[in-house]
Parts: sequence; C-alpha cells; structure tokens
Amino acid sequence: MNDAKVVIIGGSVAGIEAAIVVQRHHKVEKITVIRKEEKVPVPCGIPYSYGTLGTPDKNLIPDTMLGGVELVIDEVTSLDRNLHTVTTEGGKNIAYDKLILATGSFPLVPQIPGVDLEGVFPIKKDIKWLQRLDEALSKARNVVVIGGGFIGVEFADECRKKGINVTIVEMLPNCLFLACDEEFCIRAEEILKGKGIAVITNKTAQSIDGSGRVEYVGLSDGKQLKADVVILGIGVVPNTDLAQKAGLEIGKLRGIKVDAYMRTDDPDILAAGDCAEKFSFFSGKPSGLRLASIATREARLAAINLFEPRRRNEGTIGVFATAIGEIGIGVAGLTEKAARAEGFDCIIGEASAVDKHPGGMPGARELRVKLIFDGKSGRLIGGEACGGVTAGEMTNIMATAIANRMTADQLTNMQIGTHPALTASPIAYQLVNAAEQAFLKMQL
Amino acid sequence: MNDAKVVIIGGSVAGIEAAIVVQRHHKVEKITVIRKEEKVPVPCGIPYSYGTLGTPDKNLIPDTMLGGVELVIDEVTSLDRNLHTVTTEGGKNIAYDKLILATGSFPLVPQIPGVDLEGVFPIKKDIKWLQRLDEALSKARNVVVIGGGFIGVEFADECRKKGINVTIVEMLPNCLFLACDEEFCIRAEEILKGKGIAVITNKTAQSIDGSGRVEYVGLSDGKQLKADVVILGIGVVPNTDLAQKAGLEIGKLRGIKVDAYMRTDDPDILAAGDCAEKFSFFSGKPSGLRLASIATREARLAAINLFEPRRRNEGTIGVFATAIGEIGIGVAGLTEKAARAEGFDCIIGEASAVDKHPGGMPGARELRVKLIFDGKSGRLIGGEACGGVTAGEMTNIMATAIANRMTADQLTNMQIGTHPALTASPIAYQLVNAAEQAFLKMQL
Repeated sequence: MNDAKVVIIGGSVAGIEAAIVVQRHHKVEKITVIRKEEKVPVPCGIPYSYGTLGTPDKNLIPDTMLGGVELVIDEVTSLDRNLHTVTTEGGKNIAYDKLILATGSFPLVPQIPGVDLEGVFPIKKDIKWLQRLDEALSKARNVVVIGGGFIGVEFADECRKKGINVTIVEMLPNCLFLACDEEFCIRAEEILKGKGIAVITNKTAQSIDGSGRVEYVGLSDGKQLKADVVILGIGVVPNTDLAQKAGLEIGKLRGIKVDAYMRTDDPDILAAGDCAEKFSFFSGKPSGLRLASIATREARLAAINLFEPRRRNEGTIGVFATAIGEIGIGVAGLTEKAARAEGFDCIIGEASAVDKHPGGMPGARELRVKLIFDGKSGRLIGGEACGGVTAGEMTNIMATAIANRMTADQLTNMQIGTHPALTASPIAYQLVNAAEQAFLKMQL
Repeated sequence: MNDAKVVIIGGSVAGIEAAIVVQRHHKVEKITVIRKEEKVPVPCGIPYSYGTLGTPDKNLIPDTMLGGVELVIDEVTSLDRNLHTVTTEGGKNIAYDKLILATGSFPLVPQIPGVDLEGVFPIKKDIKWLQRLDEALSKARNVVVIGGGFIGVEFADECRKKGINVTIVEMLPNCLFLACDEEFCIRAEEILKGKGIAVITNKTAQSIDGSGRVEYVGLSDGKQLKADVVILGIGVVPNTDLAQKAGLEIGKLRGIKVDAYMRTDDPDILAAGDCAEKFSFFSGKPSGLRLASIATREARLAAINLFEPRRRNEGTIGVFATAIGEIGIGVAGLTEKAARAEGFDCIIGEASAVDKHPGGMPGARELRVKLIFDGKSGRLIGGEACGGVTAGEMTNIMATAIANRMTADQLTNMQIGTHPALTASPIAYQLVNAAEQAFLKMQL
C-alpha cells in the first residue's frame, strides 16, 4: 500500500514508536501523528524529573525521533469509520487508510473528599501539569504519596532527595504488593525507611483536608497527616473515549479490544499501548498491566501488522523494573503470589550473591534472585531480582527465558559470561543456582 | 550409588564447582578434592588483585564453599585406572569409584630468548607466584604486557591504575582481536590509550633482554621497550599430563577428550574445565575457548552426569565479558569475523543508545550492540555489547537468546522491562532495535 495514509492518534511512547516502526517496515504515502500535548514526557522518567534530573523539561521525548512524520498538535474529537476520517478540536479533517489508536490512559483519581483541593496531584503525562507539581514541590515541607506502587515509591524516593518529609500511604499490606512477592516488598520498604520515608500500609486515605489547598490527609484509622502536596499514584484507566464513541469493542478490563495482531474489530483500525486491552502470556486471560515497555512492544506489533498479520502477540509477560536509590528491583512474569492465585503448582528457586566478584570489588552489592517455576511443565513462569543497577538487565534475561518457555533443567545448563566488575562469579551466578535449587525440588 | 567414593583432581573453579554440585545431586559416601595449591585465586579476578583489590590474597576462592568435602593439599602423580586409585606426591593412595579431572591449564610461554629472566611473569593460578608479581609491580616503573587479549588488557589497565607506564604488545592487528569484531577492538584500544597505555599491534616480542633480570623487550621491528616487569598473557594450554600418562584419549586441540556428558573414554572418569576438550555450539567442531564460566558449566554437567547421562552439553557458545575502567565489553557466540570464517552468510544488526533514560540521568553511558544472525535460518549466532556495567548481563541476554536459537523476528518481539536508572528507554532498547535492523535486511 504505497499510497496509504496512516494516522496515529496519540504521541507518547506508543504513538511515537508506532510512527517509527511504520516507517521502517512500510512504504506509505504519509504518516500523521496527532497529539494534543505540545511536548510529552518520558513516562517512566516522570518521578526522576524532580530529584534526579532537576525539572520536568529535562525529561522530554525528543520529537526528532519521528523523522519524516507529520506531527499535528491538536485533539481528535471524533472518528468517522465510514468516511475514514478523524476530526480535531482545531477543525481539521484528516483522512486515513489505516489508523492506530495510541490514546494512552488517565490517572485514577480516588473519589474522596478534598481530592480537588489545590496541591493534590494525580500524575498526568502533561508537561504543564508536571511543572506545576515542580513548583509545588519546591515549596513543600510535607508530601503524602497515596499509593505505594512503582510510581508512588519512585516519587517518594525523589521527593526525599529534595529534603522533603515524605509519607507513603498504601492500602495493601506492602508497598509494591501487586508487583513483587513479600520478601522483595519488605526489602523495598526497608530501603525507603532507611532514607527517612514513612511507610504506612493497610490504611486508606479517606479525605484530603484544607481550606482552598491541602493541609492534611485523613486516614482510615483516624490519623491526620500534615501535607503541603499530595501525590496520587494508584493506577491508570485506559483512555477509550474516542474508540467508544466510534463504536469499537471494549474489553473486560476497559481497554480497546484487540486480537493477537493488535487489530480492533474494525479492519482498518489497530490499537496499542495503555488504551488497548491486554492478555496474559500465562493464562490468556485479560491483563491489567500497563507499562511503557509493553506499550512500545504493542506499538511495534501494530506497526508491522498494519496491512496484514505478520507478527503475533503471545500475550503480555509483564516485565517491571524500578530503582530506589542505588537499589534496582525487577520482576518478570508472575510473582509466586500471582502464580498460586492462577492455580499453578509453584516450585521456587532462590539464590543470592554479590553482583561483582570477589566481594571486595568496589561497588559490589548483594543481588538476590527468586525464580518461580510451574511444577507441572518445569517451565519458568516468573522471576524477581533485587540488587544494584544490573538487576534491570538480569530481569530481562528472566523475561527472555520465560518467553522461550525454558525449564529449570535448561536454565541450570545456561551459558553465561562473567567478569569481576560486571557479574557474580560463575560459581555463584544467581540465575543458575536458583534454577538448580528448583530443579532439585522437582526431583523429589 | 550411596557408597560411592568420588575423587576430584584440581581445586580451582571447575574442581570446586564439581564438588559442590555432586553434593547437591547425589548421595555419596565421600567426596575428596585433591589440589596441589594451598589456596586458589578467583581466576578472573587475578588482574584485579593489583590495582583494584590491592593484593592477591584479597582474591581467593573461599574453601568454605566446599562444605563437607575432604580437601587434600597434595599433587596427584599417577592414576591407576585398573585399581581405581590415585597416588600423590605425599605418598597417599586414594581410591575412587568416580573420578573428575579438573586439572586446569598452564599459561603459554613463548619460546623467545630471555623468557626465563627474573621479572617475567606468565600468569600462573598460584597465589605465591602472584604475590611475587605483586612485589615486582610495587617497584616497577615500566611494564610490558605481551598479548593483548582479555588478560593482557585487564592487566594493563590495572597496572596503569598503580601509576606504572604500560605498553601492550599484540601480534595481531588489534587488542581483543580473537574476541571481538574490529569496531569493538578499536573502542577498547581508544579507552586504553585514553588512560595513557601504549598499544603496539602487528608486532611480536622477539626477545627479553637484561642481565639477570629483565631490562628491555625487543620487538620484531627492532624497537626496544624498557621494562622492569613483563607480563605474559598469550593464552593457556590444557594440563593433561596425568590423563595422558593414564592413557586417556586426548582431543585435537590438546584437551582431554569428552563426550556431550563430559565423560572421558573411561566410564568412571569425567573431565571438566580448562583441561577438557570443548566443541562449538555452532559447528560441532573442537573449540579452543577456555574461560572460568565455561569451566563452571562443564563441572556442573560432569557432576550431574557422574553416574548416568542426565544433562547434555549442546556445545560451547563462548560468552566473554571484560571491563576497561568504567567500560564493560561483552561477547556472546560468534563474532562476525568468526561467523564468516565458519561460512555463515551473516546478517548484521546494530543499535546504540544510552544505558539509562533520558540521557540526562546521572552515570548514563552509550551502550552499543551488534548482533550477528545466520542469514539462512534467521537465528542469532553472535552478539557484542560495549557500554557500562550492564553490558555484562546484556551479553547474557544475548547468550540466552543464542541458546534458544531465537530468530531476528522473535528478538524484535522480545518482552523487556525498562527503567530510567537501569536500562535504555523501551523505544531505544538496543537488542530489539539491532534485531529489527537485521530482520529488515532479511526481507530484502
């Protein structure tokens, strides 16, 4: 389709990646990205805009990545599937042959009293909003972070770097409860507490109080926390307004329904990223995971499958990574908790060793690995790593092993490179030893 | 075989790992490790004993790892396969039911005049010898390193950290010539030169001159290099003396011949590590690679296959990693050079991006990846990474992908986790983008 007009709605990671990959794989007449935001932040970098990078404008996705793509800054208000056009708030009518929806998500805002007070910040991927948060933080002495997931934990760490008193309020038993198993959650909480961050779990925020602007957060146990700024990090909801108005099918978890090739129920419309419904690599069931790395992969799939099905989505494994101070934490696939809830008969292997060798190498840190195997097939279905900066790529080894359906036996036999300054010793290499521990349990 | 006596000859990484893994997998009456050295150094840590760790005794493998294994410090002088006994220099006769040979390797010493002069150090895995080198380096002003492979490059970097003038003499066109493709070799040389290390390539050392102790190294172009210490890093030869005397079969590349289960031609004797012959994962041909990570894996295989064949060696992929200063370099599988020499129709994919994101994150470094695919099958057969400390685990992702025979198409669809402080951005992730570049070339 050399004369095809491709329109992409949304210009954060999924939209930008889709535009890049369409250019690589297809000769088309024109690619247009329509985005309502002038500039977009690197989504995972948002917390780091504050303590580490300094300001939100140091955390922008450069639009130069778009190459020869037309970028229209405007908001699409309607989509006419019969006419194959989209209409913008600015009055433009733009025709498409193929359309990719990458409309992203909105932050969840809890419906509690005072949530609209000044000083309360859900995390919108909007530079102007993030700059307002920057101004508010520059004057803040007490910040309450509601939600102890990745975003909440990262914001807490960054605010603390600015010398602010920080309290995390998490309704579940631990921070990162949905992402990691308990031992890794506890490790994360220890690090946070070690930095002087207060961590309150098993409590909900029931009100935000103040006259005009926030002064206190009221908890379910009656306690009042002083706060100049409240950051909300309790999750996101897919932005499907346009898709719904156009009559596209919506999935059970409120994302735009897509098949394994990222195609909606309209043959000329695909969807990718936070706005699209996902399904689990492990169970095939709908998955609520929403991450920039997942969005990027889906955008790549949508782009290559634009005109015909070429590359299949085997389902979302779910690979996270975060850092608290110098500590890196990563999770690939199912936690033990999630695997057991899915009915897997889990076999666990664990190993810990320094991430350099011998232990006296400068900067060496303990790196702990937990692997979760399906007892029936022997296959790896999840892995967690907590260590230094290499925990991120270590997690990606686990993700690669999961995607290849590797067994404990195969992982025990894996071939690795080791070096004193870069990895554990070959004898202590965590993935191999954790796999062997699980393999031995399977022999009993 | 609950009443089996297992004897392991050699107590460096392969011997120690074999002893550990035998204990994990088998109930046996007794395990004895016989080793001539009182203490053994971490082999990959040897260069780091000097500049980074301080002294060789900070780089020891702790024998506590051996658990309940009997450690005999003595040298085995003969092996009687009929009687199933080994005899030591100290006069001990030790009976075995199963024997694992982990006798390691010797450093290659070039047969040039003056190589026996005082101040000339081949790298023996012997703490006393390494301590003598330490003393010599503490007084040295000029060091010449003969051989620009990993060991040579690492020693050069470490000596330079001590303020010594260092020259590397490499007979091949580049340092790391046998390990990496040219662009990575050149990058390594740039870093070395940036640290003030002189790099001389395409020249051989023809003599070592001095009265009683080394004063000069004479090169093939007639030049004389001043030297108080000469370090030899030109490779190793397998130590097969005992095996040969006992009539065990020796392979084409001078290692003890073993099958895919690490068994020699004697059903009760296995061999692992530097002393054992290896074969290539890619061609099945004998391979001359000798690394601690390979030795460890072979020891693990020998241990689990001790009584019956259980886990198969699919051949050596060869996964290296090194570091020069803050730069990590890793190679998995075949370089482009080696793959072409093997007759592969190579398709190359390359990508480069910072190893954190956005680029303003503190400590961010460019991490460059090159992937080598077999054009016929589309499978990954090699990968190289040059970046910061994460290049090591990134190389292990490539190794895992090679072992799983992943194609460019599959790698482009890989699932990864990303984080500002730990990895490239999902859009810039090097492995995916390099795979996609190769995939696109395959479509032409």
